[in-house]
Amino acid sequence: MQSYALTVDKFLDHAAKWAGEREVVTGDAGRTAGRIGYAGLRERSNRLSGALAALDLRFGDRIGTLAWNTQHHLEIYYASMGAGLVCHTLNPRLTPAHLAAMVTEAEDRVLAVAVSLTPLLAELLPLCPVVEHVILLDADAPGEGFVPRPGVQVWTHEALLATRGAPVAWGRFDEQSPAGLCYTSGTTGRPKGVLYTHRSNYLHTVRALQADALAYRASDCILVAVPMFHANGWGLPFAAPAVGAKLVLPGRQTDGASLTRLIRDEGVTVAVGVQTVWLGVLEHLDKVGGELPSLERIVIGGSSCPDSLIRRMEQRLGARVQTSWGMTELSPLGTVAPLDVEPAETRASGRTPLGLDLKLTDPQGVTLPEQRGVVGHLWVKGHSTVERYFKAEADALDAEGYFDTGDLASIDADGNLTLSGRSKDLIKSGGEWINPAEIEDIVGRDPAVGLVAVIGREDEKWGERPVLVVEARQGQRLEAQSLIGALRGKVADWWLPDEVVQIGAMPLAATGKIDRNRLRADYLAGKLATEGVNL
Amino acid sequence: MQSYALTVDKFLDHAAKWAGEREVVTGDAGRTAGRIGYAGLRERSNRLSGALAALDLRFGDRIGTLAWNTQHHLEIYYASMGAGLVCHTLNPRLTPAHLAAMVTEAEDRVLAVAVSLTPLLAELLPLCPVVEHVILLDADAPGEGFVPRPGVQVWTHEALLATRGAPVAWGRFDEQSPAGLCYTSGTTGRPKGVLYTHRSNYLHTVRALQADALAYRASDCILVAVPMFHANGWGLPFAAPAVGAKLVLPGRQTDGASLTRLIRDEGVTVAVGVQTVWLGVLEHLDKVGGELPSLERIVIGGSSCPDSLIRRMEQRLGARVQTSWGMTELSPLGTVAPLDVEPAETRASGRTPLGLDLKLTDPQGVTLPEQRGVVGHLWVKGHSTVERYFKAEADALDAEGYFDTGDLASIDADGNLTLSGRSKDLIKSGGEWINPAEIEDIVGRDPAVGLVAVIGREDEKWGERPVLVVEARQGQRLEAQSLIGALRGKVADWWLPDEVVQIGAMPLAATGKIDRNRLRADYLAGKLATEGVNL
Repeated sequence: MQSYALTVDKFLDHAAKWAGEREVVTGDAGRTAGRIGYAGLRERSNRLSGALAALDLRFGDRIGTLAWNTQHHLEIYYASMGAGLVCHTLNPRLTPAHLAAMVTEAEDRVLAVAVSLTPLLAELLPLCPVVEHVILLDADAPGEGFVPRPGVQVWTHEALLATRGAPVAWGRFDEQSPAGLCYTSGTTGRPKGVLYTHRSNYLHTVRALQADALAYRASDCILVAVPMFHANGWGLPFAAPAVGAKLVLPGRQTDGASLTRLIRDEGVTVAVGVQTVWLGVLEHLDKVGGELPSLERIVIGGSSCPDSLIRRMEQRLGARVQTSWGMTELSPLGTVAPLDVEPAETRASGRTPLGLDLKLTDPQGVTLPEQRGVVGHLWVKGHSTVERYFKAEADALDAEGYFDTGDLASIDADGNLTLSGRSKDLIKSGGEWINPAEIEDIVGRDPAVGLVAVIGREDEKWGERPVLVVEARQGQRLEAQSLIGALRGKVADWWLPDEVVQIGAMPLAATGKIDRNRLRADYLAGKLATEGVNL
Repeated sequence: MQSYALTVDKFLDHAAKWAGEREVVTGDAGRTAGRIGYAGLRERSNRLSGALAALDLRFGDRIGTLAWNTQHHLEIYYASMGAGLVCHTLNPRLTPAHLAAMVTEAEDRVLAVAVSLTPLLAELLPLCPVVEHVILLDADAPGEGFVPRPGVQVWTHEALLATRGAPVAWGRFDEQSPAGLCYTSGTTGRPKGVLYTHRSNYLHTVRALQADALAYRASDCILVAVPMFHANGWGLPFAAPAVGAKLVLPGRQTDGASLTRLIRDEGVTVAVGVQTVWLGVLEHLDKVGGELPSLERIVIGGSSCPDSLIRRMEQRLGARVQTSWGMTELSPLGTVAPLDVEPAETRASGRTPLGLDLKLTDPQGVTLPEQRGVVGHLWVKGHSTVERYFKAEADALDAEGYFDTGDLASIDADGNLTLSGRSKDLIKSGGEWINPAEIEDIVGRDPAVGLVAVIGREDEKWGERPVLVVEARQGQRLEAQSLIGALRGKVADWWLPDEVVQIGAMPLAATGKIDRNRLRADYLAGKLATEGVNL
């Protein structure tokens, strides 16, 4: 059979040829800031590859991006990957020190930065001696007062394209070549880089396009509210052109008003992002009224979403909510709920399409004899799963080739995965395990509770004991007795937290998840006791 | 990222683990002859691999099959491919001489043969000195009077499994290893072998599973009426386990009564096969009455199907008809009509999902400047397209890596492909081309016409001139004047056939297509003039 390298430039080539007029729309605070057909996008991205070559970048070199979901960012994706460079997406919500560590480890020779982020860039650049070029995205001029450090050349995206752009032949390299680099959030440890290959991205894309998976179609108009710096933007920058779907990139703002406007103006049929974003849309509609008639489906992922919230979203937004689970190390899709499964089952994160296998083990990594209906440690193996972290000295796999997700999960008789916490968050009390996620799930159902976390504190007698930390919803009063009372009979008595602390604001990591490391550190330092209220 | 070989055994592994109870049902004249879950099928197929190894078969050896769509045939598929052997499917409707040529060229050391085909086997075996073992499928004893030639060991499938079966580790080889071998029909030349690889079959499968392509789901029950000896059974033996869909294999009989019964008894949702098979179902229902409430979709392929027939099928069967185009050299899927495209457009064969590119050229292979709205010679390039025929000495590709399909086609503005004949059938008259397919299309609309073919005869003045050959529908009378009259104004005057011959029965090849080689030879030999009627 024909040799045919699985490289990501083929996605945009396909779209340019078969859906050349289908648009990629960029939003800015809900207004349309730009639109271009796939044929035009391909032509620009390809010439941008030529411009990058003119900057003397060589095969495998990394380009860091600090950018929002925009056409320019997408052009950097394809211009770099198509030419054999590595697109290293960075999260602009991290601190300059964190970012500098990543840029330095990755040896990013170029940083492509949204103009709106030049204040961050001004802080970051002095910490990154490896950077030689800066490309400013989304506008023609840097923010006021920006002065690059000596030795760094600054271009605007458009000027670089206009002065150095030249067509090049894309993709003439091995499909195992690196294409993208993304660091894990690092909420539970040092951030680690995952180096995606062309092959892993290509296979991830066709896996996700299956009718029983994300099932995007040419007729869809897809709103990507998940940042393009989170694990390949959940694969949308690849999947949308691969089927020739219209793509709506909202820019920086993902508030309810902005997204509502874009959904209406562009006729969005599928909206993809974390549940909090869609809650924002919901609250906006509740406030101002109105409907979203074009919207057919919302894809959510990450943490498990309560049934009641899914029902509320489906009823108010008039769209089916499709749950999924993934992680940076999985490119990111792990499991997804098929569209023809009854909504009654939505609480789970769906099934694993072909290309990723799952197994449940005990804490020591020994495969559980029973793989259905029990909670175990989740390990995975597949064509788009990390084998070794970037610049790590050893593989991250067990003897059977499986990767430890760090998640606790169960699988039902139909193969549906339900996540139930992180293994690192488990609390060992008297030699037995307490799962904070189960306690948090029950406490979180109290309408007066905003955010909730259970952490372990050292205990002389038991080893560890659970502490319940809660943040009240605005205007609500919490009482320890009622919170603990709700747990009685639902968890074992020895699981009941010994201590309940109410704090004003739960510490959050850059990804929006609760920062448990910080919470444990604050507890140890006595900060929770002084700043919080022992209920 | 993890190394993960794209081998076809992963399809059945996936089904066994995630849809282990989902069934593969085998029919026999419409009655259910057997059923097994994917877990059981995987276990049996895997042990059968061990049995094949016990026959001293070595990596890459070929196993020929002369078999219908049954569980045993499917077990031979996975047992051979999973162990690194090559499953060589043979068409039982070919002559023993044709089959012997293929078996000999392929060096099939084993033949796996349906018990109902032992008469054919008895003729074939003496012509095939390479064959060492025969495995009889679907029943426990060979047909009466069957005596193998000396040196051939005969097993029944069940006895081989019972006495030699042993679990083996599947798939521990390079994904570029050969998995299957299938010869083209040879209606327009010598049959040529296409050697599929594990990688090409894997990628073909995920390409076909896309929501905009064949979109099979775990909840589907798929009836495979296309023979498993035709180009991987259109990929169904891979695609169904890859999503965990229920599979219905009808056995030898694909008449209307048998298929109707299976569709009802097993709750078939998707039925796949050539249009003539579904016409049989339609006619059966018209005769005996009744509906097929479970049926949602019919996938047809091969030759282009008239709109009126599609409408009739959709109305009578209550199912959506999905058109497609493919060929043995393409594994076989080329294009397919997305399910959400309005039925008004069904006449075309759909679009090309990611993984196969198309181009139109002139007769010399020069790419046409305009690729839309004009008829050209169709060339293709992709991950599951032939590069070089089995044992051929040169690649079958042009300088750009494209394969000549031999088809004439046009592509509309939305990327929909419409086939319009074979380039080899073109008639060159006065230095210009006449396309028989266009004439046949118009003549075929006459309700009195059964089958129609236009062939070229040599002509001193013009080089070639068209001859119209027609077979009337039962009880119908044909008249040359009205047939030619229907063409006037629709094709150029110099396209009008000079001669109209009516014959009693159109010669058909083993695939069911009109045998144009035979027709041309018969014309040359004067047979058409003597056996037919010059209208």
